[in-house]
Amino acid sequence: MTDIAAMLDAYPAGLNGIDQDALILCVQECHNCAQTCVACADACLREPDRADLTRCAGVALICADIVDVTSRTVVRVSGYDGAVVRSLLQTCVEACRACYEECRRHALNHEHCRICGDACHRCAHACRELLATVR
Amino acid sequence: MTDIAAMLDAYPAGLNGIDQDALILCVQECHNCAQTCVACADACLREPDRADLTRCAGVALICADIVDVTSRTVVRVSGYDGAVVRSLLQTCVEACRACYEECRRHALNHEHCRICGDACHRCAHACRELLATVR
Amino acid sequence: MTDIAAMLDAYPAGLNGIDQDALILCVQECHNCAQTCVACADACLREPDRADLTRCAGVALICADIVDVTSRTVVRVSGYDGAVVRSLLQTCVEACRACYEECRRHALNHEHCRICGDACHRCAHACRELLATVR
Amino acid sequence: MTDIAAMLDAYPAGLNGIDQDALILCVQECHNCAQTCVACADACLREPDRADLTRCAGVALICADIVDVTSRTVVRVSGYDGAVVRSLLQTCVEACRACYEECRRHALNHEHCRICGDACHRCAHACRELLATVR
Repeated sequence: MTDIAAMLDAYPAGLNGIDQDALILCVQECHNCAQTCVACADACLREPDRADLTRCAGVALICADIVDVTSRTVVRVSGYDGAVVRSLLQTCVEACRACYEECRRHALNHEHCRICGDACHRCAHACRELLATVR
Repeated sequence: MTDIAAMLDAYPAGLNGIDQDALILCVQECHNCAQTCVACADACLREPDRADLTRCAGVALICADIVDVTSRTVVRVSGYDGAVVRSLLQTCVEACRACYEECRRHALNHEHCRICGDACHRCAHACRELLATVR
Repeated sequence: MTDIAAMLDAYPAGLNGIDQDALILCVQECHNCAQTCVACADACLREPDRADLTRCAGVALICADIVDVTSRTVVRVSGYDGAVVRSLLQTCVEACRACYEECRRHALNHEHCRICGDACHRCAHACRELLATVR
Repeated sequence: MTDIAAMLDAYPAGLNGIDQDALILCVQECHNCAQTCVACADACLREPDRADLTRCAGVALICADIVDVTSRTVVRVSGYDGAVVRSLLQTCVEACRACYEECRRHALNHEHCRICGDACHRCAHACRELLATVR
């Protein structure tokens, strides 16, 4: 069992009706995506064709910040507000979609873009799954 | 002129059609709101009636993170994606609304909640004004 | 292989002499620790004995922010500055030490504090290991 | 009076002996510096001579994250730990120093680098002033 799963098991109150498995998967994918986005933006700056990758770096930096705040917000049970969580998860899906679309354009030439795009795709899916359980 | 206004004047490309004055006001209000939310959450933990303020601390921590990432994202012109920015500004309005509603309940008893609630109210307004200019 | 390991393999330049295995472990432990700290702070707010846990929540929130920025900074190869990375890793060790010490005081009564304290302990160790390789 | 100054006046406990004026100035300069660093990194990506500005963008992104977490940490009175605050302020001084040094190299050609470098310089000074009051 991962630490975050054990933490949620030990939580001293209910999880506002949120599905625990969907929550854990969302947190894990958000954190993985945050890592790949920060690293991909940095790698884009170092490529010889960096002029073509400017937008990719910019999109990845935005996505990194949004997935990071999403991963924190969804485990903050005490300040839970359904409208905020739903809106943030939708924003996270958009950010992952934008980064996936941009990374995919460079995936054949740059392995870091391929890995990052795949991470964004999985993260968007996990956010959508969690969103379906939030009231 | 503030530093961020001077930075935007010096920006080497267009601002994707976003209104510069609305952008600057949004960044300033988001940063001010981030400060009050972090400080209000911390102050709530120290009050003798902290049991009543648990939710207020939780909501303020979520709002602090969301206004912070909003203030960063809107100045990231290179990775601009209209759908992402619009969705994030809407999320920011929701987070400020939730924190304002909770802070207002404690504003008569706790000056830090009154100040924080007012900051959230102004921040939500600035986000809505900017949102109206984003395509 | 994890995504971050694959990203670093695909990095288009050297890693400034940093040991890749130590870097990956540090990023993973920082992210795990960020998750447990955010969740532990939130759980502390909900406990019946929250008055005793006020400081634990405060320390965990600080630690969560510092491990988060550490995990981002160490993979940012492009802006590498040895003095900055060393100083930040030392700060991260201090933040984990402070959170571990506080969580340990409540570990017998609160499983979330036990898990979080262990995560901080491992994170501090991973930061020290990485620190030993940074020039 | 700024909101953060009013918040600290309303704080329900002492500030652990930290000088309130130095604290407020540090928070304000950190937030201003966070804004200029995020904007400068983004602007660097868009310049025709972006190859020369790769390192500047990277350093500014690291500095943006570190000043941001510093501004949050110093107002978190509940989880105060002198060793953590001192170490973080020293890290913040290093990050501002690194960004100032890099920005200064491009200040004649790029106004955004000049503004950002000046902001880093003032922020480092404010952190040092606060550091002198932290025990």
